[in-house]
Amino acid sequence: MKHTAHTRVRYGETDKMGVAYHAHYLNWFEMGRTEFCRASGKSFSTWEAEGIMLPVVEAHCRYKSPLLYDDEIEIETSVTKLSKVSVTFTCRIFHADTHRLVAEGYTKHAFTSTDGKLLREGNALEQWLKDFLSDE
Amino acid sequence: MKHTAHTRVRYGETDKMGVAYHAHYLNWFEMGRTEFCRASGKSFSTWEAEGIMLPVVEAHCRYKSPLLYDDEIEIETSVTKLSKVSVTFTCRIFHADTHRLVAEGYTKHAFTSTDGKLLREGNALEQWLKDFLSDE
Amino acid sequence: MKHTAHTRVRYGETDKMGVAYHAHYLNWFEMGRTEFCRASGKSFSTWEAEGIMLPVVEAHCRYKSPLLYDDEIEIETSVTKLSKVSVTFTCRIFHADTHRLVAEGYTKHAFTSTDGKLLREGNALEQWLKDFLSDE
Amino acid sequence: MKHTAHTRVRYGETDKMGVAYHAHYLNWFEMGRTEFCRASGKSFSTWEAEGIMLPVVEAHCRYKSPLLYDDEIEIETSVTKLSKVSVTFTCRIFHADTHRLVAEGYTKHAFTSTDGKLLREGNALEQWLKDFLSDE
Repeated sequence: MKHTAHTRVRYGETDKMGVAYHAHYLNWFEMGRTEFCRASGKSFSTWEAEGIMLPVVEAHCRYKSPLLYDDEIEIETSVTKLSKVSVTFTCRIFHADTHRLVAEGYTKHAFTSTDGKLLREGNALEQWLKDFLSDE
Repeated sequence: MKHTAHTRVRYGETDKMGVAYHAHYLNWFEMGRTEFCRASGKSFSTWEAEGIMLPVVEAHCRYKSPLLYDDEIEIETSVTKLSKVSVTFTCRIFHADTHRLVAEGYTKHAFTSTDGKLLREGNALEQWLKDFLSDE
Repeated sequence: MKHTAHTRVRYGETDKMGVAYHAHYLNWFEMGRTEFCRASGKSFSTWEAEGIMLPVVEAHCRYKSPLLYDDEIEIETSVTKLSKVSVTFTCRIFHADTHRLVAEGYTKHAFTSTDGKLLREGNALEQWLKDFLSDE
Repeated sequence: MKHTAHTRVRYGETDKMGVAYHAHYLNWFEMGRTEFCRASGKSFSTWEAEGIMLPVVEAHCRYKSPLLYDDEIEIETSVTKLSKVSVTFTCRIFHADTHRLVAEGYTKHAFTSTDGKLLREGNALEQWLKDFLSDE
């Protein structure tokens, strides 16, 4: 399963080169994950309220083409790896008008309790995510 | 009492106009408050650990002159108003090389408990801040 | 004329108090202005391409109620003051579900050329904004 | 050659988990590169003024241990790969008090002109960086 979210490049997300600053792409990846969960039937804030956190343990992004202020982007999110203790979301960002791929990357997350302890024995969110991985 | 902190404009804090984006000045005000507390003998994180939070209830800034990437700035912070339930920090930002005033403003904060309840009867942080106000 | 834009509080926009950090409201004000211009028939990026910039010379915000991660917000934007050399946008942020006003403020902008010179004699954007002010 | 810069985690850089949000590490990497250049004798803003830009084409970070508000960090930066058309900076972030490695990663940058064209034939910044790579 893939989910596509939309947003636009904010003025404050540009830098002096006149293009979107690279760190903000990680925020867009996060928006993608948030909307992926909502579209899948259970918001990420609900998972957190139930005691499962997803701290990022690794992040990667390749930047292929610059984005300008006010450009509309599509954020395509999918689950690409899953184990008892971690999940990887892969994200591709497209320029909405041209459908050109402008960036792609992933974030790997640990499953932890609210006090930061690794959940080693599997958990309800991991079970739920299995369905999305089996769609790939 | 006034305290001066130093930082530099980061690349990601500039925008497509080539100058520091206006919202980041509020982050610099926050750095000023943090360093004000540390210089005064008790870090703000310690106050929070003791159960006193300072959510912002009002913020204001006048921008007088632009800042460029890598400009070094001085952040001058003082306490300018204090009541049992709120405190106002005033902040002036100077270009470090020219000593020109580039922005000034303030943030007003409520004293609350960690669960967000207003502390109406005075508190240890308010008592401590009184000394700084009496210096003005 | 008033225009209402929508967005959600991102994870990275929260802070250790568990609520949206105050500086990000200025980014939402900026989203509101961007969408105000687009809804009014001419995008702000077009105005910039035509050589008119709107650097912020003053910003103010009152925070009335906290926002949480993933809260949907409505950003209501209007033009409230206009002169030959500056324009003020007023912004009110509502919690989308409860319609509660959570913050309100304004930003005052100078009209400048792309090289930062104040446009003293009036300009095309100022003429265009006049219509919105006369709607109030 | 390695260079170490220092900063502290700002309040606005924390998130609702109570730790530094992962995207901000890329801003710290950028601070590291900026200070690396300054310490090496020529500021990055000078290189840009001379017409050489370094847009990020790839970024990667592994997060090993969380950082809290006000934690002081050390940002260790070095040049680890260099070609005629790109340079890679490797960055390690340490908790200043404990000297524990909390994150490590890299950013790969293209050499471009101010209008975004790839500089294919080598350039003055590339020549200058060669010395740092030969130190490794």
